[in-house]
Amino acid sequence: MHRDRYYTLAASCPDRSGIIARVTGFIAEHKGWILESSFHSDEGDEANGGRPARYFMRMEVKADSLPFMLDEFRARFEPIARELEMDWKISDSAVKKRVVILVSKQEHCLYDLLARWQSKELDIEIPCVISNHDTFKGFVEWHGIPFHHVPVTADNKPQAWAEVRRLFDESRGDTMVLARYMQILSPDLCAAHPGRILNIHHSFLPSFVGARPYHQAHERGVKLIGATCHYVTAELDQGPIVEQDVIRIDHSDSPDDMVRYGKDIEKTVLARGLRYHLEDRVLVHGNKTVVFR
Amino acid sequence: MHRDRYYTLAASCPDRSGIIARVTGFIAEHKGWILESSFHSDEGDEANGGRPARYFMRMEVKADSLPFMLDEFRARFEPIARELEMDWKISDSAVKKRVVILVSKQEHCLYDLLARWQSKELDIEIPCVISNHDTFKGFVEWHGIPFHHVPVTADNKPQAWAEVRRLFDESRGDTMVLARYMQILSPDLCAAHPGRILNIHHSFLPSFVGARPYHQAHERGVKLIGATCHYVTAELDQGPIVEQDVIRIDHSDSPDDMVRYGKDIEKTVLARGLRYHLEDRVLVHGNKTVVFR
Amino acid sequence: MHRDRYYTLAASCPDRSGIIARVTGFIAEHKGWILESSFHSDEGDEANGGRPARYFMRMEVKADSLPFMLDEFRARFEPIARELEMDWKISDSAVKKRVVILVSKQEHCLYDLLARWQSKELDIEIPCVISNHDTFKGFVEWHGIPFHHVPVTADNKPQAWAEVRRLFDESRGDTMVLARYMQILSPDLCAAHPGRILNIHHSFLPSFVGARPYHQAHERGVKLIGATCHYVTAELDQGPIVEQDVIRIDHSDSPDDMVRYGKDIEKTVLARGLRYHLEDRVLVHGNKTVVFR
Amino acid sequence: MHRDRYYTLAASCPDRSGIIARVTGFIAEHKGWILESSFHSDEGDEANGGRPARYFMRMEVKADSLPFMLDEFRARFEPIARELEMDWKISDSAVKKRVVILVSKQEHCLYDLLARWQSKELDIEIPCVISNHDTFKGFVEWHGIPFHHVPVTADNKPQAWAEVRRLFDESRGDTMVLARYMQILSPDLCAAHPGRILNIHHSFLPSFVGARPYHQAHERGVKLIGATCHYVTAELDQGPIVEQDVIRIDHSDSPDDMVRYGKDIEKTVLARGLRYHLEDRVLVHGNKTVVFR
Repeated sequence: MHRDRYYTLAASCPDRSGIIARVTGFIAEHKGWILESSFHSDEGDEANGGRPARYFMRMEVKADSLPFMLDEFRARFEPIARELEMDWKISDSAVKKRVVILVSKQEHCLYDLLARWQSKELDIEIPCVISNHDTFKGFVEWHGIPFHHVPVTADNKPQAWAEVRRLFDESRGDTMVLARYMQILSPDLCAAHPGRILNIHHSFLPSFVGARPYHQAHERGVKLIGATCHYVTAELDQGPIVEQDVIRIDHSDSPDDMVRYGKDIEKTVLARGLRYHLEDRVLVHGNKTVVFR
Repeated sequence: MHRDRYYTLAASCPDRSGIIARVTGFIAEHKGWILESSFHSDEGDEANGGRPARYFMRMEVKADSLPFMLDEFRARFEPIARELEMDWKISDSAVKKRVVILVSKQEHCLYDLLARWQSKELDIEIPCVISNHDTFKGFVEWHGIPFHHVPVTADNKPQAWAEVRRLFDESRGDTMVLARYMQILSPDLCAAHPGRILNIHHSFLPSFVGARPYHQAHERGVKLIGATCHYVTAELDQGPIVEQDVIRIDHSDSPDDMVRYGKDIEKTVLARGLRYHLEDRVLVHGNKTVVFR
Repeated sequence: MHRDRYYTLAASCPDRSGIIARVTGFIAEHKGWILESSFHSDEGDEANGGRPARYFMRMEVKADSLPFMLDEFRARFEPIARELEMDWKISDSAVKKRVVILVSKQEHCLYDLLARWQSKELDIEIPCVISNHDTFKGFVEWHGIPFHHVPVTADNKPQAWAEVRRLFDESRGDTMVLARYMQILSPDLCAAHPGRILNIHHSFLPSFVGARPYHQAHERGVKLIGATCHYVTAELDQGPIVEQDVIRIDHSDSPDDMVRYGKDIEKTVLARGLRYHLEDRVLVHGNKTVVFR
Repeated sequence: MHRDRYYTLAASCPDRSGIIARVTGFIAEHKGWILESSFHSDEGDEANGGRPARYFMRMEVKADSLPFMLDEFRARFEPIARELEMDWKISDSAVKKRVVILVSKQEHCLYDLLARWQSKELDIEIPCVISNHDTFKGFVEWHGIPFHHVPVTADNKPQAWAEVRRLFDESRGDTMVLARYMQILSPDLCAAHPGRILNIHHSFLPSFVGARPYHQAHERGVKLIGATCHYVTAELDQGPIVEQDVIRIDHSDSPDDMVRYGKDIEKTVLARGLRYHLEDRVLVHGNKTVVFR
């Protein structure tokens, strides 16, 4: 919630001493004003064949504190990034991210996202909404957003996913949000956009993977139910988790009650996860995430 | 979430032995099938000049399990209620409650309530939305709901409240919901509809009564912020509390961030409180509530 | 938290109309004063080969409001219970429950339970503490509670479980609490005490069954970790769940941090689950529980 | 939870550009390895007569990565700190903090703290426990910790506070913890140890200041109750808040039930607040805190 334009640098690199000094030294040298900064060292688990140790950082720098624009920042920072073997990106708060929303017949996440967009709480472009049903065509178009009805049947999946991909690419989408989209995307569509497709799963993963998780939860007799926002990968409900939350239920709640309670956490968890993602607060490391809230 | 029609009996009376037996005996005598039942004995605090001891109950009875309709239920139950000095009401799940929504310029509670209404999660009639601004005229009307713009200025308050009252009465409203309506209703409007006007206050009452509660919370440095759904009485933010919730914040959150976080609990707390109210789960006792969830 | 002596009736039976009236009618007939009462109808899932529909109830009746003692209550109530095909029990608040605690080398649940016992928040007898280590011998004995060291090795398990069983039976234990007891009891020991052995598992079941759940949680990158209090059955971590809770973590928390956070919810969840159990608030139905809080 | 020895630098200074670069540059120059680092810029509210803008930081540096010990670190860092007008301290993980606990007759916080100390989860020295009652003398001494009984009556307060102060100073205490100590310390005792006395208040401040907060909460009919860990200042329950949490209650909970529920959050909130304090994660700014969790 900064009024002034700023750049967000998000980066990770192999851990070593002096990383912060190197990066903030570069910024200080040009009189850059750092508004917010976060660092994290993940020790990894290489000894046991797991993730290698890695260093993560995120910084917001006031745009007009620097004597150059983003292109020159990129050019000047490049040698440092190379030296540190960095995986990095920098974004400009003045450039709105483009978010394509996929939805089926449930309204709660869609209404919630459009309310946040309407009030500029989510300061994004929504180039289009795609759905396998035409339920929300009127509602979406009333908001001045193009709506694409792409039916998905047992027979037409390859064509449907090709069409979704075409629409996403044509609208120059940065992020695809599955806002309770009840279809499983094809593995190659997922693989083509790593770390760019967010899903909301209606359980506290890793419990209750797959279909009808509230019914699974009811059958097991759990006392809390949850929702999980995660990046979509080729493997169903197994991608890096971005955000989760739970709500208390009890023996008197039927699966239908749980569906109703669940909606409240699904939409909140999706909105939080999406915000973290859009603000470049989420850095992926193997199958896990660093989330600089 | 019952598929079948049912009657909801909500009642309170001075505490004594045999109340449940008397009431459920009447129902059993007519072969009534009780779907759900809740009881509570409030010991009160009469010794210290507080509330008297009182007994509360709520029962859902399957409509077609009884050999008569609601009118005859009322007539036959009346003598028992009189004997027990009961304050009671019975409602029919087949008759939709009529909820009038008042809103200003913030969208989150309005979008949230209309999404729940749209999906029939809230199975109510919304005869109209009233606002002191015309911001949401198009949005509300798109949903097929009449919208009334009743401007409120320093000078016209008596006329404005008279108009709100007229619109509420004409639309035969059961419940008035202040969905972040930024105006303070007149004391006599409040007094005329006890237990029928619900407000969402953007703080964890009794902390931070009145204006700009998130700024008050930021100034005090609290680590959680909250929202409170309560019945409106003539005294500002002092009515019986129906539902509350909180969310964690930290030192890095500005008042603007808190406003944003707060919206998520405001809309959820209001929706929960409204549902409890509409399902006759809320019984008022002095300045407190019994909520049979 | 009643000052006066009371009886607690906990029962379940096949669902039909008139159950509450029948039971409360019996109590009212003898002028019994019901302090608290809870009812629940579980529709079951018999159509799909699941649990049959069943009715659950719990009532606290003031002891001195009745003209007879517990034995006569039992005798007089028996015909009603038979007629309703009830599974029932009644207990007397004046008779303390006897709880045997099993512990290994972690202190948090043990200190927590003894603090609650010390202050009479848990108004129970602890006839003894059993451990496979002698770590807490001095601490337990300082409290005036007998301590039994029953080592468990790969070789002596049958003898060890026989000894645990003998100690539990000899001390006339009502309930056995596995307060982070790191051993898996033998299936026949579990089967011999259904609904009487409570365990605290350090994950939010059904996630992360078995060993080192915090390491599993760390590896999966979840954003909340949990604890589960459940009845022990022959199948590991699969028994009916009594209580659960979670706590938020983030990417900066190592498995060691998670172990530390986890302790706080483990002891609280165990204490809550134990309290519900001791107050006969937990009724088991198949592999699920009804918990009348 | 680092196995290796480390130094913790906690500092704040007026905000300007280049602070991180200056400090981390110094550490990098000497090949220091930063294990964890956190930064925060508080914009303050000077325009409205509030707090001035200020920058906060906390860093953990691996001790053996530096070519010198703490004294030399201090000497070499001093000029930088002076230049930045810093308020700073650095501590050594190898030197245990000394925590004096004050307690009355309630056991829950005391048992909880000693359990954490016993297991080295809290890796501190407890030079003594002071109480206005002798209830826990045996329990404390069994743990090998000196116990001082300092009775407090209406007449002896000046002497009692003088004695508490003497005991604290003689035991070279770093921190004084009021673990449900039911007495109000004298203003000058508070003023003499700013930021060093932690209290646990049994309400969600600023609600329900002063005596019997659970009774106040019951009377108001709130749906959640809380606890607050804060630094003690001369003004009752008004000091900077370090940590808070809440728990859900309902209409069926008496003040006694609330006391019981409250204990569980009191001890957890106190333990978390104390840990943040001991790890130098809490930096005070005016009447607020920055807590680098």
